[in-house]
Order: sequence, then C-alpha cells, then structure tokens
Amino acid sequence: MKDDLDYKVFQEVSYGLYVVTSVFEGRMNGQIVNTVLQVTSDPPRFAVIINRNNFTHDLIQKSSLFGISILSQEAPMTFIGLFGFRSGRDVDKLSKVNWVAGKTGCPLVTDYALGVMEARVFATLDAGTHTIFVGDVVDAKHLADGRPMTYEYYHRHLKGKTAKNAPTYNPSAS
Amino acid sequence: MKDDLDYKVFQEVSYGLYVVTSVFEGRMNGQIVNTVLQVTSDPPRFAVIINRNNFTHDLIQKSSLFGISILSQEAPMTFIGLFGFRSGRDVDKLSKVNWVAGKTGCPLVTDYALGVMEARVFATLDAGTHTIFVGDVVDAKHLADGRPMTYEYYHRHLKGKTAKNAPTYNPSAS
Repeated sequence: MKDDLDYKVFQEVSYGLYVVTSVFEGRMNGQIVNTVLQVTSDPPRFAVIINRNNFTHDLIQKSSLFGISILSQEAPMTFIGLFGFRSGRDVDKLSKVNWVAGKTGCPLVTDYALGVMEARVFATLDAGTHTIFVGDVVDAKHLADGRPMTYEYYHRHLKGKTAKNAPTYNPSAS
Repeated sequence: MKDDLDYKVFQEVSYGLYVVTSVFEGRMNGQIVNTVLQVTSDPPRFAVIINRNNFTHDLIQKSSLFGISILSQEAPMTFIGLFGFRSGRDVDKLSKVNWVAGKTGCPLVTDYALGVMEARVFATLDAGTHTIFVGDVVDAKHLADGRPMTYEYYHRHLKGKTAKNAPTYNPSAS
C-alpha cells in the first residue's frame, strides 16, 4: 500500500457484479468479477479483469473464450459465495448451478442472470497481478427483466466482502 | 451493428460517471467518461477507456497523465453537458469550473466531485475506436461525502443520453 493515497476514494468507483466463465478441453469454471465493462461499440467489445492466480484466468488464457452473466439484485450470498470465495481447482462449481453452452462452447451461468454474453479474446494486457482480457462479443442474450446487482448493493445490503484476488481489494478495509 | 446480438444486455452492465482530465504543454481538457475501473490493488492501477477522436485522448497519449474526478449524484446536466457533449478543441472547458493542479500537474476537476485521483500511464491497449489507458495512481484525495453518480442514475433520473463517442453507445437506443 502507498500510505499517502486515500484508499476511500477507490470505493466511490461504481461496478456491477458478474460471473465470468470459461472452458478449455472440457474443464469449465466461473468466478465472481466486478470489473467488467464495454470497451467499444462498433464492433462490440468487452473487457474483463481477472487475477492471474485464478483458475478461470488459466482457462481464458488457453481457450481465448469467456462468458459473462450479468447478475440480478436477487442473487443470494450462497450463490455469490460459491463463485466468489471458492476455487474451481477444488470444486466443480458449474455442477451446482444451471448453465447453458453458448455458441462458442463456453458455459454461461443462467441462474440469477439478467443476460449473458460470450466473447472471443481479441487482445490482452498484462497489468501485473491481473490481466485485462478484451473480447469480441459473439453472442448476447437477454434472459430476464430486473435490477442489475451493483457492487455497492452487494456491500451495503448483502454485507458482502471483497475477495483478496479482486482488483478492488483494499487490505485496510476489505 | 451485429443484428443477432441483443444489445439490451449491454445496458445491464453497471458504470459510474467521471470527468477524466489531462494536460500537455499547457493545453488542458476533460471529458465525461463512464468506463473507469480499478485494475490492480497492489500497486493501485486504474484504467480509463477513451475514444481516439477525443481531444483528451491526444493529451493523455502525449503526456501519459490522466486525472479522474468521481462525480456525485448532485452533478447537474449543465455540468455533465459541458464535459460530455462539447469538444475541448472548441471550448476551454476548465475555465468554466473549479479545478486544482495535482502532483503531476494534471488538472483535477473539484466541482461535484466526491474524490479525485491522478495517474501516470503504465500501459495502453489499442482496442480499435477506443484506447484503454492503464495508469499507476500517484495521488488520491477524498473531497466530499455523498452518493456517487451512476450511469443508471444519469439515464433514469437525469434522462441523460449516451454520447456517440462513448464505448457504450448503441445506435438503436441511445
């Protein structure tokens, strides 16, 4: 930590909450990610930011595929905990939820999802502990109406914590 | 546009609202950006995504500096309109608001800002129409308590539009 920075400022930045999935040679996984955003409109490209130590990172790096499920405000802590605080190296997360295989074969989690998309990696940026994967959106489907889960809602109403592997982890106020 | 994609899904992704600033050889500018996020925690790095055609893009590319002001929900449409729908090539935007020079010399807009930070570009990724600038945060200051302006609040309550140069512009539903 740099002690002269006011880390409180970082917490005023807004995020949603997503499950990002991938698959490589039959191994599948997904994890909670708050750092998802659209990068360009034409063609539609999205970025996801993933910790290098995570199993989902390995899968995306090897297959160049990722899926995004946009979580609804209705998603409960049990669901978020499964994807957010357990490693896919230890547990087969996808066996515990509903998902569909997308056009690319990437699994897309449909539980508590307002919509899903899948993307093929177009470029990556090594940012140190995390990688920015930028992908061309190859499919996007609306699944349900509802309010998207925001990171602020997750912290304020669900009393959710920030995982150590998150880009927004703050040791002094997790 | 790819007609088989359901663009409604993209609108369920959550963002905040920010003024991103820069300076090069005395020329200063700032623009509204919704695509800002933290990339790593240690060291603290943030990404901003900027359209290549924008004046602020030129300045960041030349100086490797950018500032971020996290807007409060109190920011009015007149303020957002100045930074969001006018080009710094035509108007001296910073002459019309309050700002301070940061440690790096980058201007930081303080009006309607909950906090400000400034960063030095560490890496860039050319994503086509837009560039992802990733910067090391060199300073961060909390300015005021309040609720951050979200992109959803801007659309729903201020009836704000999405500018054509935004990563999230959707020709069929701007």
